[in-house]
Amino acid sequence: MKKEKKLEKVTPKNLPGFKELLPSKQIVFENIVNSMKHVYEKYGFFPLDTPILEHSEILLAKAGGETEKQIYRFTKGKTDMTMRFDLTVPVAKYVAMNYNSLAFPFKRYQIGKVYRGERAQRGRYREFYQADIDVIGNGSLNYVYDAEITSIIYEIFKGLGLFDFTIRINNRKILSGFFSILSLSDKCDDIMRIIDKISKIGLEKTKNELAILGLSISQIESILEFVCFDGTIEEKLNSTNAYLNMDKEFDIGINELKQVLYYIDAFGVPCKNYTVDFSIARGLDYYTGTIYETTVNTYPEIGSVCSGGRYDNLAECYCDRKLPGVGISIGITRLFDVLESMENSIFEKDFPVDVLIIPMNVELFRKAIDISRLIQAGGINTQVYFETVKLGKGLKYANKLKAPFVVIIGEDELLQDKIRLKRLSDGYQTTVNSNEAIKIINNNP
Amino acid sequence: MKKEKKLEKVTPKNLPGFKELLPSKQIVFENIVNSMKHVYEKYGFFPLDTPILEHSEILLAKAGGETEKQIYRFTKGKTDMTMRFDLTVPVAKYVAMNYNSLAFPFKRYQIGKVYRGERAQRGRYREFYQADIDVIGNGSLNYVYDAEITSIIYEIFKGLGLFDFTIRINNRKILSGFFSILSLSDKCDDIMRIIDKISKIGLEKTKNELAILGLSISQIESILEFVCFDGTIEEKLNSTNAYLNMDKEFDIGINELKQVLYYIDAFGVPCKNYTVDFSIARGLDYYTGTIYETTVNTYPEIGSVCSGGRYDNLAECYCDRKLPGVGISIGITRLFDVLESMENSIFEKDFPVDVLIIPMNVELFRKAIDISRLIQAGGINTQVYFETVKLGKGLKYANKLKAPFVVIIGEDELLQDKIRLKRLSDGYQTTVNSNEAIKIINNNP
Repeated sequence: MKKEKKLEKVTPKNLPGFKELLPSKQIVFENIVNSMKHVYEKYGFFPLDTPILEHSEILLAKAGGETEKQIYRFTKGKTDMTMRFDLTVPVAKYVAMNYNSLAFPFKRYQIGKVYRGERAQRGRYREFYQADIDVIGNGSLNYVYDAEITSIIYEIFKGLGLFDFTIRINNRKILSGFFSILSLSDKCDDIMRIIDKISKIGLEKTKNELAILGLSISQIESILEFVCFDGTIEEKLNSTNAYLNMDKEFDIGINELKQVLYYIDAFGVPCKNYTVDFSIARGLDYYTGTIYETTVNTYPEIGSVCSGGRYDNLAECYCDRKLPGVGISIGITRLFDVLESMENSIFEKDFPVDVLIIPMNVELFRKAIDISRLIQAGGINTQVYFETVKLGKGLKYANKLKAPFVVIIGEDELLQDKIRLKRLSDGYQTTVNSNEAIKIINNNP
Repeated sequence: MKKEKKLEKVTPKNLPGFKELLPSKQIVFENIVNSMKHVYEKYGFFPLDTPILEHSEILLAKAGGETEKQIYRFTKGKTDMTMRFDLTVPVAKYVAMNYNSLAFPFKRYQIGKVYRGERAQRGRYREFYQADIDVIGNGSLNYVYDAEITSIIYEIFKGLGLFDFTIRINNRKILSGFFSILSLSDKCDDIMRIIDKISKIGLEKTKNELAILGLSISQIESILEFVCFDGTIEEKLNSTNAYLNMDKEFDIGINELKQVLYYIDAFGVPCKNYTVDFSIARGLDYYTGTIYETTVNTYPEIGSVCSGGRYDNLAECYCDRKLPGVGISIGITRLFDVLESMENSIFEKDFPVDVLIIPMNVELFRKAIDISRLIQAGGINTQVYFETVKLGKGLKYANKLKAPFVVIIGEDELLQDKIRLKRLSDGYQTTVNSNEAIKIINNNP
């Protein structure tokens, strides 16, 4: 065909901070997403999908200065638009918009891309996946849902082949109540922001920052003693007894936390996978009750890979109704990097086909199609290698695909109505009919 | 907790042309996507995911004026960025970038959102899902893959509960060769653009437009006689015999088409679901061989819901390698509207949980959690209704969720270690243990 013009080549490249995976890694990524979906659905969560672009006034209704600097915002015609930077603001909008059509408690999950124009650096992405779940109540929401969320976090991580992780639980009311007891209510937000960094900056720097904020030495010591108390969950709870009946919010927070812990036990989350941690504060977020962080114990340096908490009023920017919610967000793109560097078992299923079918010449293509359809009917993913080349090249292609098996379609075997099945891991070969082949392929560990 | 400022409400709304589904519809949408993925994976296609934002020079390397007007393009800092408007350009970039790491033929599927700033109107979206598959060869690609694509289209539609559809197949070389025989090579693109609209604008208007282009009456008649020839596939092929051996490209096109048809038969695609149609031209696309369109016969007015074809050189904008490809694209968002208006059977599974568990009071919450875990272990999606309200409210919630069953946890039944299982469709009730409940729920049609 004639060409309209000679094309100039453009060097193919991606925007910095925008991750793209090679095929075998992409398969693992899909497996991770499917494994998460499976858990969310088991607990009866609805899937949700919201636009990536929204009116800027919607997305930025609650955002502060930090968010505004990092967003992708532009106008087209007269419309001021922003790419979503999380999945919490969109669900708040969605619930306010569709209030009359939803059943409450509304349980939804959403797995999708979000955009933040941060300085691109290792482990920081500008486009990345978040997997969020939230339970949203109408007027009120029992604290047993906060325990259920913990159970879901546990199942998610277990499903990904992670076992050595800790879900850290706290309650914001305990912290703000405690600061009130120390007559520091006016500095509450700043203190939360500082203690939130303890594990990153260490005790000495934390002390310095609290001193700069104007806290007395005894206030600083009380705070650090409280938030850094080490021990079992029971011991930690006991350590709070000294402050009971001094501040209403503090007492409510302790009660909420105790309720959550009571039900976490009922959900069967093993003790070794959760704890109470009074030092987590989620400083920049808007939580008003339970807060969660989850750390992979062999990778403490990467911080929390699953965080969340409870809002008294999720959709307060969009409507007057009281819609309390509790939820978590998992940064899957970063979690993927962690799992990859751990050589996690989920990286073992990274091939698209179970068997590559290689016809030995073009006359055997139709026969290869027949065999392929028979094997597919056994629930097996197949590819036929429709190339007129030597067997060696077909085997090389199978190796590149990481296909566990090849089926070779040759004239000799066909005369006996058989095919040659070869396992690539150990070179084992056998001449069988297609039903026998299906059995062998399906029984391969 | 104290609030920093009183929030002003923002009325929640979406951008025009950006679709968002209610929960029970979203479940169906997910089912559609999963059904498609299942077919793609059966044929050994790799999943692929590429960024939604790309450098503008990458996405617009080949684009013409029409595309440029419709895109979402903006700058951030010094970077000129565009939101992808299809999934073909990104895969071309990907293959050029990762050539050395890929196994060829490279079979990939991608399901994702694309963006076009068209005038929003019924059935036209600015954000919508495309589901693409492509097979990309290194240097050459056997035409049997074009037949395989037809088989995949067939299985996709069948999987969605659609049976009355027709895959229309043509070959661009036949059309351009035929125009060359009529000494109309210089007007080839314009003629394709006009005949591509025949089914929309009718014969008379087509004649007029061709006349305006400067074609003689006899040329117009030859073209219309050729492209509108009605009959079986065999009769249509026979009608081309008169033009054989007059133009090399025409002959090649006929041969390619015959090969594709030969293998479509081997793949077992029923005759009633495919045909040859010399009037499809894909006027605005860059195909160089096979072209496909798929029409739902009960909805001819919506046009093609699955189109595609073969490129000689997919990545010519980005590299010098010859990488022929064949693929299709399904506009799922629009297809969803069609399936919905047909009351397609896929819309029947639109609930997130199989069973809602209702504990009769707060003391029974822990027991409800235990029962829920037992039933989940039977592969059943459950929700527990953690509200301290009357049974009627729980049943109303179950109805809103469209849950087929409820399990009622009451003191009386628990004394016998049993639960009350109720089917909501007919009110059938029974008092059973949890294993018996699992059996009944799993056996429900």
